Amino acid sequence: MKQVLNVALAERSYPIHIGAGLLAQTDLLLQHLLNKQVAIVSNTTVAPLYLEKVTQPLRAAGIQVVEIILPDGEKYKNSETLNTIYDALIAARCERNTTMIALGGGVVGDLTGYAAATYLRGVPFIQIPTTLLSQVDSSVGGKTGINHPQGKNMIGAFYQPKLVLIDTDSLHTLPARELSAGVAEVIKYGLIRDSDFFNWLESNMTQLMALDEAVVTEAVHRSCQNKAAVVAADEKEAGERALLNLGHTFGHAIENAMGYGVWLHGEAVAAGTMMAAELSLRMGWLQADEVSRMKAIFEAAKLPVTPPALGADKYLALMGLDKKVQNGKMRFVLQKGIGQSVVTGEYDVKALNAVLAHYE
Amino acid sequence: MKQVLNVALAERSYPIHIGAGLLAQTDLLLQHLLNKQVAIVSNTTVAPLYLEKVTQPLRAAGIQVVEIILPDGEKYKNSETLNTIYDALIAARCERNTTMIALGGGVVGDLTGYAAATYLRGVPFIQIPTTLLSQVDSSVGGKTGINHPQGKNMIGAFYQPKLVLIDTDSLHTLPARELSAGVAEVIKYGLIRDSDFFNWLESNMTQLMALDEAVVTEAVHRSCQNKAAVVAADEKEAGERALLNLGHTFGHAIENAMGYGVWLHGEAVAAGTMMAAELSLRMGWLQADEVSRMKAIFEAAKLPVTPPALGADKYLALMGLDKKVQNGKMRFVLQKGIGQSVVTGEYDVKALNAVLAHYE
Repeated sequence: MKQVLNVALAERSYPIHIGAGLLAQTDLLLQHLLNKQVAIVSNTTVAPLYLEKVTQPLRAAGIQVVEIILPDGEKYKNSETLNTIYDALIAARCERNTTMIALGGGVVGDLTGYAAATYLRGVPFIQIPTTLLSQVDSSVGGKTGINHPQGKNMIGAFYQPKLVLIDTDSLHTLPARELSAGVAEVIKYGLIRDSDFFNWLESNMTQLMALDEAVVTEAVHRSCQNKAAVVAADEKEAGERALLNLGHTFGHAIENAMGYGVWLHGEAVAAGTMMAAELSLRMGWLQADEVSRMKAIFEAAKLPVTPPALGADKYLALMGLDKKVQNGKMRFVLQKGIGQSVVTGEYDVKALNAVLAHYE
Repeated sequence: MKQVLNVALAERSYPIHIGAGLLAQTDLLLQHLLNKQVAIVSNTTVAPLYLEKVTQPLRAAGIQVVEIILPDGEKYKNSETLNTIYDALIAARCERNTTMIALGGGVVGDLTGYAAATYLRGVPFIQIPTTLLSQVDSSVGGKTGINHPQGKNMIGAFYQPKLVLIDTDSLHTLPARELSAGVAEVIKYGLIRDSDFFNWLESNMTQLMALDEAVVTEAVHRSCQNKAAVVAADEKEAGERALLNLGHTFGHAIENAMGYGVWLHGEAVAAGTMMAAELSLRMGWLQADEVSRMKAIFEAAKLPVTPPALGADKYLALMGLDKKVQNGKMRFVLQKGIGQSVVTGEYDVKALNAVLAHYE
């Protein structure tokens, strides 16, 4: 049941392989290497589960493997951890043709991709995402980066991998809360541009949460298809790509205020998406029954639908730092029905304040 | 006597304007801005001389100017200084459409370009190089980055500016030693690919060192032409672009060993180029009279032609970190005559050791 997708970006195009058991298919990796050295970055949670599976056959094929194991957690997605990666690459004398491989979730992928983008001004890299969130979102599209004390992903680069390898088997070791957080982004694709997929998810959520193999592969595949289509149309987020940030303006404020890692990214996106839905509802762009369907599907995925009570002022201050700000004016991704999101600065300030007033 | 060049890189193409008095031509800047905010990065030496000249007319045109003044010196080209730039950008709420402007020499340009490449995953930037070295070399071609304690420019990005504005008047405040260091790179273009230019420089070195306006403009123009041609053919340094590193493998070792900033980059390149010439001579690729001409032109430019006595082991260890290393093998840019350099791993190890043995 292996699926292959192409992310079409001219000379930066790359394939995504999706299926069960792909970690063991070392040929997929070998054909992308430019020399006999790879640097694999993973973390203390994922490495004991999957690192050996990747490195053993690589070493058997004569590849020198540099292992860089990071502490696990969003709070380590910072410049200090990035420096430990640089130090390890230099200590192992990694070269411009050394391929970096990210084995882990979004934090490992973002850090590794950013290190690859900037070490010696850029070395090739491969994504092997092991969480649902990273499989359907962060590993596809080339966004890499780290957090700054004052904002998430404030420092980074657009840098495309040479290959994304998604082994759906790795989801079986994923904690339930992280599975839910990944489903938040799966639902997002239905909401922003694929109402058929949203309908399919409403019918298949039980099987998805139970990790039915066919349903998981289909959900990951359709998510990556949607993401790849958006990225191909707008690599550097000049326009359409901003749709992928549905729920993220509010969500980033939640993550930042609670301390990175306290709310999972997908949890913050779910609650943030409900805030965007409430704003859309108050502006007359979304119907009450659509908001109810959104709430129901997030709840079926065991995701939070009620944002924390930060107070309107704090929400506004934190959202002012969002990367979508243009000429000082805030921009939101709002809903004009299920399957149709829009990026807009034309929101109703009174409606926004009314939404935020709920969370004092 | 204004000259305009184009660096041809498809959608990343950009113009270089060269001439006296260009700092005051604010229209050249204004037409490239995407919003009403710029962040100008300069240093404590250049800012008192030229910052007001740039900012006053920008402010008069309604542009909000964020000023970021760094300490002066190669030793500040590091991650700490980079972080002070990020902090200032965030404090001023700079956005994706805010243009960053580098006003200063190579250190300011490299730091600003790298900050621009990575802040919010990339904002537009403009180079206004004020030293000869940065005018003829580092401001053109999109190499940006910072040093690592274990190596120069180990961290960075290829990121092209939107515009390079070269005001040759700014050379009148340049210390004599820095003027010479810039001339080292001017001579380099003659050596690697333009023997006519080398001959012209032999005839015009006195006027160049005296900053004769016509000679300076011509020297900068032909240097940028050569650099732009090389960069256009090989943006990411896969091949030909490595020729620009003539003298740099040895030179980086010198800079690193002496402590960044003790030898100026151009000084290290001059001495390093003479080491490459000696190696080429010993391999029979260069004639003794050509080595003499090289020594004479560097001396006319008041540049050092004798490398420091680091010892062969230290040279080899430091050169092992060079970015041109492939599969563990060192690569050199060597001379096959004046006007023809080659990048090669086919050097004579005995000859290399004989050259290094001179500097025990």
